[in-house]
Amino acid sequence: MSGHVTENHVAKSPITIVVDAMGGDHAPEEVVKAAAALSVEKPDGSEPLHLLLVGDAPRLHQLLMHQRYDAECLAIHHASQVITMEESPREALAAKQDSSIAVAARLCSEGRASALVSAGNTGAAVLSCLQYWKRLPGIRRCALAAVYPTEVRRGEKDDPFSLILDVGATLDATADDLVSFAVMGAAYAARISKNPQPKVALLSNGAEAGKGPKEVVAAHARLKELRGLHFIGNVEGVDIPRGVADVVVCSGFVGNVVLKMLEGVSETVVRLAHYAYKEKLMWRAGLAMLSGGIGKLKDLTDWKQYGGAPLLGFDHLLIKAHGRSQAGAIQNAIKVAKKGVASGLLPDIERGLREADLPQALPVGQS
Amino acid sequence: MSGHVTENHVAKSPITIVVDAMGGDHAPEEVVKAAAALSVEKPDGSEPLHLLLVGDAPRLHQLLMHQRYDAECLAIHHASQVITMEESPREALAAKQDSSIAVAARLCSEGRASALVSAGNTGAAVLSCLQYWKRLPGIRRCALAAVYPTEVRRGEKDDPFSLILDVGATLDATADDLVSFAVMGAAYAARISKNPQPKVALLSNGAEAGKGPKEVVAAHARLKELRGLHFIGNVEGVDIPRGVADVVVCSGFVGNVVLKMLEGVSETVVRLAHYAYKEKLMWRAGLAMLSGGIGKLKDLTDWKQYGGAPLLGFDHLLIKAHGRSQAGAIQNAIKVAKKGVASGLLPDIERGLREADLPQALPVGQS
Repeated sequence: MSGHVTENHVAKSPITIVVDAMGGDHAPEEVVKAAAALSVEKPDGSEPLHLLLVGDAPRLHQLLMHQRYDAECLAIHHASQVITMEESPREALAAKQDSSIAVAARLCSEGRASALVSAGNTGAAVLSCLQYWKRLPGIRRCALAAVYPTEVRRGEKDDPFSLILDVGATLDATADDLVSFAVMGAAYAARISKNPQPKVALLSNGAEAGKGPKEVVAAHARLKELRGLHFIGNVEGVDIPRGVADVVVCSGFVGNVVLKMLEGVSETVVRLAHYAYKEKLMWRAGLAMLSGGIGKLKDLTDWKQYGGAPLLGFDHLLIKAHGRSQAGAIQNAIKVAKKGVASGLLPDIERGLREADLPQALPVGQS
Repeated sequence: MSGHVTENHVAKSPITIVVDAMGGDHAPEEVVKAAAALSVEKPDGSEPLHLLLVGDAPRLHQLLMHQRYDAECLAIHHASQVITMEESPREALAAKQDSSIAVAARLCSEGRASALVSAGNTGAAVLSCLQYWKRLPGIRRCALAAVYPTEVRRGEKDDPFSLILDVGATLDATADDLVSFAVMGAAYAARISKNPQPKVALLSNGAEAGKGPKEVVAAHARLKELRGLHFIGNVEGVDIPRGVADVVVCSGFVGNVVLKMLEGVSETVVRLAHYAYKEKLMWRAGLAMLSGGIGKLKDLTDWKQYGGAPLLGFDHLLIKAHGRSQAGAIQNAIKVAKKGVASGLLPDIERGLREADLPQALPVGQS
């Protein structure tokens, strides 16, 4: 398969998704469960789905024996090695070229599947894609995106989520990188959240065009001129939870800090309220009544429950589910991957990148 | 006065603080009120305080006429111009060298006062200090620090606040800058929060020493070797509200995003809870009972109420109160400035910087 995604990609059927069966805290049991359940689910009007489970074949076969599944839609591909959550990604991948994640990425590059889902080691997953996949024309560095809940509903699905990218794949992003992230994030929001004209913003330390480090200022000037993108300018930290933008663009370092702050913030606010007002009986009663709701609120603010984080910039799509994912979360990740393929996300991104007229990437590695 | 702060500085008495009477949304009325109230307050065992109000002298005199104040401890110094909150700092300062903030900074540099308090235009205040004050030896760029509430109590005062710096004075910080911020932040926490061994951390995208952009990795290696500093390594975004560190060190760009996210976050979580659970009567009742508490929580998370943000790195201390400050908040800012001077904060910082063995700053401007 070439580095260029073609429109044919979209119409191809059935859609094959390769799944890293050995990745994640609950692998392979929960991954097998998720795949088996999806194999028997045949939603009306949806493209047929074919799943390719990659991992220790004897073990996967044995686990499948205990599940109801459709053997027509589910195959196993053997991989003899596993990269654990704790391993250092670069060293582990170099040593384990037959690991489930490396094999899964290779299967995509050989045209055997259109997208990859993994709940395993994030660094190893990103590096596997980097090793085996081709960057789209105009992409220098890829971006890992994450969704987070905001106060605003958006799109056809009345979706409370904003997208933020990059959240850790590219710590230092150049102006070109930020422009490509904006284009890719907008396409993702349009296709996955069915929000046809997502509002895209740069994260900075002030709303004015001149605010921010030089790469942010330069990206602002470029994005302002870009037709086909609904660029609303800079947003500040305070606008993130408010949901002022549908797509927030920043360097991987800043995005990682922001995302992790959001993760912990709802539980912390509740604990802080407790701490500050523990002497007031009425507040305690209110908190007790809320505590059930707060648990659900934490779920809602837990972006990992919502299909995982897409890695964007390659000729295939990776959906990285959280390491703690159980069968339900992995099913969601697979569904998002399928939707990405079925909706023509990658051709859409390619078109957007062409319009952005980005310099062609040099054939250098990405760390 | 020389660029070096001497120990004599500490013992000098009374302590003179210059106050930008024209800065802030409620200036000069609330500033005059604050100064008048402090002039008649004589806490036992405390150094005498002398306040120098800078601004439109006729107007300030007229406002003072309606206040009870001690004329022995309160003087007015005329300045014919004002820089408003909306003006572009660089242009405004260049055009208005007789503005209250420029005159106030100049009075410090002439030895007339030890510290400056302003609720006015932050950029103009920072640039005024940069123009008239001397950087301490080893400081290349200054840092604006802010306190924010966490779940942990610390120090002699059982203080729930962590300090984060820089929050916007130095967008791109080098490894040397980050090291100097760590030293200055530790001294501030020790003197102002009376936390003798504050835990200092670098904000990064992972706990490991090798995580982060190159300047963070280099600063980590340097801080680990620094005696006299309780460096606990890297913290991540999720650790910020938890209060894992007493002093969080980062570039001004990242710190600005973090601080503004914290500002909006408690109100957003509450609104989000409302939105997510509005259908559940019990949760609604719980929220209603909490709403009084939540209002107070917002105050608690509003760092602006707690004395303002210190600008560190110069031979004088600036406490930047929030633009919306009223008399109470301005009084707090003046008290913090006094405490900084009385406790020997600047000599302490100078000592720390000497131990950190930072390269001497070149005589270049700072933007």
